[in-house]
Amino acid sequence: MVAKLPEEEHPKQAFGWAARDESGVLSPFNFSRRATGEKDVCFKVLYCGMCHSDLHMVKNEWGTSTYPLVPGHEIVGVVTEVGSKVEKFKVGDKVGVGCIVGSCHSCHNCTNNLENYCAETILTYGAKYYDGTITYGGYSDIMVADEHFIVRIPDTLPLDSTAPLLCAGITVYSPLKYYGLDKPGMHVGVVGLGGLGHMAVKFAKGMGVKVTVISTSPSKKQEAVEHLGADSFLVSRDQDQMKATMGTMDGIIDTVSATHPLVPLIGLLKTNGKLILVGAPEKPLELAAFPLLMGRKMVGGSGIGGMEETQEMINFAAKHNITADIEVIPIEYVNTAMERMLKADVRYRFVIDISNTIKSTH
Amino acid sequence: MVAKLPEEEHPKQAFGWAARDESGVLSPFNFSRRATGEKDVCFKVLYCGMCHSDLHMVKNEWGTSTYPLVPGHEIVGVVTEVGSKVEKFKVGDKVGVGCIVGSCHSCHNCTNNLENYCAETILTYGAKYYDGTITYGGYSDIMVADEHFIVRIPDTLPLDSTAPLLCAGITVYSPLKYYGLDKPGMHVGVVGLGGLGHMAVKFAKGMGVKVTVISTSPSKKQEAVEHLGADSFLVSRDQDQMKATMGTMDGIIDTVSATHPLVPLIGLLKTNGKLILVGAPEKPLELAAFPLLMGRKMVGGSGIGGMEETQEMINFAAKHNITADIEVIPIEYVNTAMERMLKADVRYRFVIDISNTIKSTH
Repeated sequence: MVAKLPEEEHPKQAFGWAARDESGVLSPFNFSRRATGEKDVCFKVLYCGMCHSDLHMVKNEWGTSTYPLVPGHEIVGVVTEVGSKVEKFKVGDKVGVGCIVGSCHSCHNCTNNLENYCAETILTYGAKYYDGTITYGGYSDIMVADEHFIVRIPDTLPLDSTAPLLCAGITVYSPLKYYGLDKPGMHVGVVGLGGLGHMAVKFAKGMGVKVTVISTSPSKKQEAVEHLGADSFLVSRDQDQMKATMGTMDGIIDTVSATHPLVPLIGLLKTNGKLILVGAPEKPLELAAFPLLMGRKMVGGSGIGGMEETQEMINFAAKHNITADIEVIPIEYVNTAMERMLKADVRYRFVIDISNTIKSTH
Repeated sequence: MVAKLPEEEHPKQAFGWAARDESGVLSPFNFSRRATGEKDVCFKVLYCGMCHSDLHMVKNEWGTSTYPLVPGHEIVGVVTEVGSKVEKFKVGDKVGVGCIVGSCHSCHNCTNNLENYCAETILTYGAKYYDGTITYGGYSDIMVADEHFIVRIPDTLPLDSTAPLLCAGITVYSPLKYYGLDKPGMHVGVVGLGGLGHMAVKFAKGMGVKVTVISTSPSKKQEAVEHLGADSFLVSRDQDQMKATMGTMDGIIDTVSATHPLVPLIGLLKTNGKLILVGAPEKPLELAAFPLLMGRKMVGGSGIGGMEETQEMINFAAKHNITADIEVIPIEYVNTAMERMLKADVRYRFVIDISNTIKSTH
């Protein structure tokens, strides 16, 4: 049997932008999506956020990419079709899809609403779906997904700036909840003020927590405090500031994905304090045991969130008027945006205006 | 003012064995203890366990030692005198002192029964006490301590094999409780089968937990399973065994104080699993972030326990007939015992028979 072309695999014509090789350059791409199955929801994509992992994936920096690769896992749009057994959604609903579109539904994690930790999780793009075809992400005009992996976007949330909540938002919301750093009056540090960090500030503030942004760059102080609403700002290279803040934090959300020293951060924690990593540096970090022992501290990790919690996060965002700070771009700008993202030259998330700028060649 | 000699500082004549310099060699030493203050308990020392940290301290390997240094922080004996305001103890009671003899009593940790994490904790030996004199440990004939730092030893517990509970016991009991690894039916790994590790097996079994001992040395299997009662044994250098056990443990108590890889241990944990370090390798360990993120796992630390919990641990030990496996030695053997301890040539703790072998020269 000859393998089918991406545009002939499935009945629904789709159009997106794909990387074709490890150069990572994106260009127009005709492909197809499956027919809307009985549990599937089909939606017109309106906006898609650009996550830093898209950058890694288009260049195959994690060694797992297949080409053509259509990135995008911060996808929002409007439902155009639902399968016969879909219970939660109807045509016209505003919906979103995040990082995952499948899981086993039977393991301990799945039955505890932790699909994100299921060993058989299917990622939204670049993964093999149940039918053997490769999944394509949200830099494209339509999306089809099982309703289990679709979240509802309340009407009060603007769709463009809500898109990044589906990855960046849940990535920081989930550890704030799980590690118990969501109690009003607590003091939480946020390391790194990028896509993840600025969402961590907003969610922690929404939870009533005192937030200190920790950054190598003093220039971000005004932005952190005046614009994002952080309570204070700490320059991690300033030994005096760091010393004066030692032992004051209940927890830290560390969003930095470059290799960086952990011991100074652990020093900022109170007894029983928690340093939570949500970025994944490629090289191992150095962990001195003694500072953990001396204050019963921990270094924990967290990766996105389960579907129930993702919906909870969206509802929390709606209630507290939390959205991402974004720069909306046309699809033609996507390669330039990738370059700027690499330099952290964005406040704080690029969101592609899919429906107004993507033009099918069909 | 001329500094007083150790034997003239206080009114009570005391006799012990002390290291005089970084050679770490212990020899007989005349010193003195303070008069029994109104909140103090004075007791005749019967047994004192030898902890691995005694070895580090006599040789000044942590750079904090002062000489002469009388080690020993697993001290048990019988009360001979109590101060006028002592409420919990009377002459004749069996008691013990562990790693700490003072703390501030007013900080957040102290007021939450976590004296062990107080920034002003006073260690049982080699530390400056409130009166400015240096504390001396349990390799000595008498002990005077504030009743707050004294625990009661129930009559059913043999004093010699109970001594090591005061450091080794609480060091593993406290993290099993705090990190929630004490639930019947859970599966907990114990890395390293020394003084700490063998206590971890016993306490975890007492809590109804399934215990797997993880060791580099296959030769310890019979001992771990048949003698200590572990449910299973895992050779950490055996890739097949390690692979077959991946994702099965709720937590791991890691007692190893040599540098060692953490990633294989993290791989043994279930989602939400906890790797708890109670040993303190001198050099930083390598911590890869990704394995933590992928299963919301954590690496935590824990150091001894508070006084309330230390009493709780002793009571738990009495209820479940848990004591240390010991080799009782005379004080004259202490230098040889130090050498053997360095080679891990002891099952599992040396305990010095103080009252029958220490002879005052007074």
